[in-house]
Amino acid sequence: MAESWVIMVTAQTPTNIAVIKYWGKRDEKLILPVNDSISVTLDPVHLCTTTTVAVSPSFALFRIGCGLMGRYQFSCVFPFFSREIRARACDVEDKERGIKISKKDWEKLHVHIASYNNFPTAAGLASSAAGFACLVFALAKLMNAKEDNSELSAIARQGSGSACRSLFGGFVKWKMGKVEDGSDSLAVQVVDEKHWDDLVIIIAVVSSRQKETSSTTGMRETVETSLLLQHRAKEIVPKRIIQMEEAIKNRDFASFAHLTCADSNQFHAVCLDTCPPIFYMNDTSHRIISCVEKWNRSVGTPQVAYTFDAGPNAVLIAHNRKAAAQLLQKLLFYFPPNSDTELNSYVLGDKSILKDAGIEDLKDVEALPPPPEIKDAPRYKGDVSYFICTRPGRGPVLLSDESQALLSPETGLPK
Amino acid sequence: MAESWVIMVTAQTPTNIAVIKYWGKRDEKLILPVNDSISVTLDPVHLCTTTTVAVSPSFALFRIGCGLMGRYQFSCVFPFFSREIRARACDVEDKERGIKISKKDWEKLHVHIASYNNFPTAAGLASSAAGFACLVFALAKLMNAKEDNSELSAIARQGSGSACRSLFGGFVKWKMGKVEDGSDSLAVQVVDEKHWDDLVIIIAVVSSRQKETSSTTGMRETVETSLLLQHRAKEIVPKRIIQMEEAIKNRDFASFAHLTCADSNQFHAVCLDTCPPIFYMNDTSHRIISCVEKWNRSVGTPQVAYTFDAGPNAVLIAHNRKAAAQLLQKLLFYFPPNSDTELNSYVLGDKSILKDAGIEDLKDVEALPPPPEIKDAPRYKGDVSYFICTRPGRGPVLLSDESQALLSPETGLPK
Repeated sequence: MAESWVIMVTAQTPTNIAVIKYWGKRDEKLILPVNDSISVTLDPVHLCTTTTVAVSPSFALFRIGCGLMGRYQFSCVFPFFSREIRARACDVEDKERGIKISKKDWEKLHVHIASYNNFPTAAGLASSAAGFACLVFALAKLMNAKEDNSELSAIARQGSGSACRSLFGGFVKWKMGKVEDGSDSLAVQVVDEKHWDDLVIIIAVVSSRQKETSSTTGMRETVETSLLLQHRAKEIVPKRIIQMEEAIKNRDFASFAHLTCADSNQFHAVCLDTCPPIFYMNDTSHRIISCVEKWNRSVGTPQVAYTFDAGPNAVLIAHNRKAAAQLLQKLLFYFPPNSDTELNSYVLGDKSILKDAGIEDLKDVEALPPPPEIKDAPRYKGDVSYFICTRPGRGPVLLSDESQALLSPETGLPK
Repeated sequence: MAESWVIMVTAQTPTNIAVIKYWGKRDEKLILPVNDSISVTLDPVHLCTTTTVAVSPSFALFRIGCGLMGRYQFSCVFPFFSREIRARACDVEDKERGIKISKKDWEKLHVHIASYNNFPTAAGLASSAAGFACLVFALAKLMNAKEDNSELSAIARQGSGSACRSLFGGFVKWKMGKVEDGSDSLAVQVVDEKHWDDLVIIIAVVSSRQKETSSTTGMRETVETSLLLQHRAKEIVPKRIIQMEEAIKNRDFASFAHLTCADSNQFHAVCLDTCPPIFYMNDTSHRIISCVEKWNRSVGTPQVAYTFDAGPNAVLIAHNRKAAAQLLQKLLFYFPPNSDTELNSYVLGDKSILKDAGIEDLKDVEALPPPPEIKDAPRYKGDVSYFICTRPGRGPVLLSDESQALLSPETGLPK
């Protein structure tokens, strides 16, 4: 095997945000949750991880390329992922180039990987979920593993729990499973991304001075100390999961919004019931909730649902484009950018929502009227870092265009 | 009865702060709670209501004097309180002045009342608890009702639930009761104020831009929508009540602090689990909790307990004077006063704690070192309005010195 060919695979995998939350493990090592959870996959056009994995008989070592997000985290999970996928590897043949890797060769071959996010890694936008899912998916394709995405999700889960939900588009359920080895704790698709395609998602990335408790530490402390968590996991979430699946299948936005908001709030409630208490939301998060609640109440039917993960960022899911445009007007009224920030770098992603909202420049932001449902509405300049407009999106895909690969097809080193 | 004599009673009643919280009514009209609660009575020297009630055959009308806190609230509860106490009234005789009011006369007589707080009413410091308890207590003394303070507490409870706990000093339990008419839902003393007299209490009155949900509305919405409240009330609080009584009786500060903090956090957790969610604590409240938690952990045993009611103010209970002085140093480090504020109006109440902390003026505040248990500790100037240093205190008393009366002994009108 002194040949110098390189075989590569490049994959793109989305992030996801839970609408029924995962919080608490029943098995720390296998990452088995105390309850089912449901997420919506975010459009990879705006938020995704791209990962290239390459193999060559000339590679002497496992290498993680430069430009890699979460290099340390990747190094930790890679040996496990690699072992699991190698165990499922099959023969790979490139007849055109006369290359053949037989199943047993995978034991001896080294791989190179490189990965990057098209969004800021440190902003608390579930980058590890997309990253770990992408690594498992790319390795599986490279090694010609025949497992379907649900089976792969059970591997990704062991890198980071919520990563398992990034193996599908649309709405995804992570079934907690029952068996002790965790093999039935995996993700399944509830509906694909075309099923409910008028939803619009606006993420408010909130400025924060606080250092947050990591979700791994946080959920361990909640499991150990909260007297409310078990009641939530055993009595409340199972019913909500059924109701949420129903709401999604029926595109019943009122029920969807009610369940999403209530479950986000209850997740933060059990964080607060932890000793010492965990606060992920800050005053800005509270103000965003208040803005949405007041608007929803003034209209009479929910226009927007909100959900917050282990940080102060708000993920706002609007019923349709019209509601999203109105929401963006309200958000920009309350949270105008700092004077040194351009609108173009303040509202990212699908900028057509800005156009729908009739906002072309910062003057339009300045001139926004206060939302009529709130008296004496103050403005909180600078409390939001930026917004991202997106929508529900597809699951992992292979990128066949070699120009999108992050490693050189000749050397297997970062381009 | 065309005579012109005036008979008056002046009473002083403390506020209280719950260490096991009351949140949720099982009967809105009778104000019957979903669980027992336990409070500590605050020293009336620093926080109390003084109320004078007067009666005269010459009074043509029920009058509420000027300078009265919560005039509107008083007008609402007065008819009920008055009816209840009149039903329990006995003969009153002032032999010296040759005055006699027989039991049946009370039906026809009108009373004047005046009341004032020795602390800011709007600051969210349980002014209605002290005010209502004081009114019931003063009326009972005026009308020579023979009921003991527990029996009076069942009347005060129907003005504002937590008022019933202001009829005793020290630590007080409000027993939720069982019977339908609410007659067994009343307060009893756990221990008096001398039992655990080295505790020191520091209240941080937190600046807030937010308008808060009233506790009446808030608890109704929690009862109607929270899926966690019933579990808390039925499964968690009953055990905590037993543990808390034990901790208080044994002066076991570690258990006391653990239970106090956990129960405050759980109360705010069920508020967050309400639809729409209720936020009483803000970023400043969170920072105070973080300061206390980090310090307690760095020492290894709790030095200070924290508890928050339906607002952002922190009530901090220190194990002893030494811990209180250290706490005050830390609090003044994080939350120095605005530059236009004098120390004298920034730290109120028992100023000897300031002396113990070695702080004489604002220069000493400026020079405070950052608490060693926190790296890169920032300072949040102006986020606290002021501090009040106090301690556990006594229950209601009559003030016999006529100079302390709020009504004129000649006219029965405000002095």
